Amino acid sequence: MNWIEVLGIVAACCTTVSFLPQAIKTIREKDTSGISASMYFIFTTGTILWLSYGLLTNNFPIMLANAITSVLAAIILLYKFRYK
Amino acid sequence: MNWIEVLGIVAACCTTVSFLPQAIKTIREKDTSGISASMYFIFTTGTILWLSYGLLTNNFPIMLANAITSVLAAIILLYKFRYK
Repeated sequence: MNWIEVLGIVAACCTTVSFLPQAIKTIREKDTSGISASMYFIFTTGTILWLSYGLLTNNFPIMLANAITSVLAAIILLYKFRYK
Repeated sequence: MNWIEVLGIVAACCTTVSFLPQAIKTIREKDTSGISASMYFIFTTGTILWLSYGLLTNNFPIMLANAITSVLAAIILLYKFRYK
């Protein structure tokens, strides 16, 4: 593995795990007034499509990253609708 | 282009443009109380790393998607620090 591949893996880890602190904050505080429902609707749809793409092309990193992110984004979206 | 490639492009468009409604909402309303600074710090870092990866591997779709998303995420992060 060369350093460019390592860079890609670090990048993927960042964009994937970044939704965890937002999900924890939203679950704890139930403050969703500043959160855009459109963003989380479009983003969750996108990650589900990415997950499907990963499954269809047998690409494990795409599957794993988007399985995690789609769950976190869906939780935030559900809280947005539950606690307007 | 087969339908699986189209699926990947639609997925990429969704996850990229999803940050636009959040940026517009944040700029208009300046309500950042429910937004996680950690999320936007890690996410912006991740998209800048992805952009670097795209430049180093000469991958235009990765460059384009992450150039757009890094700017939108950085705007949201700046508003989070400016309007706590």
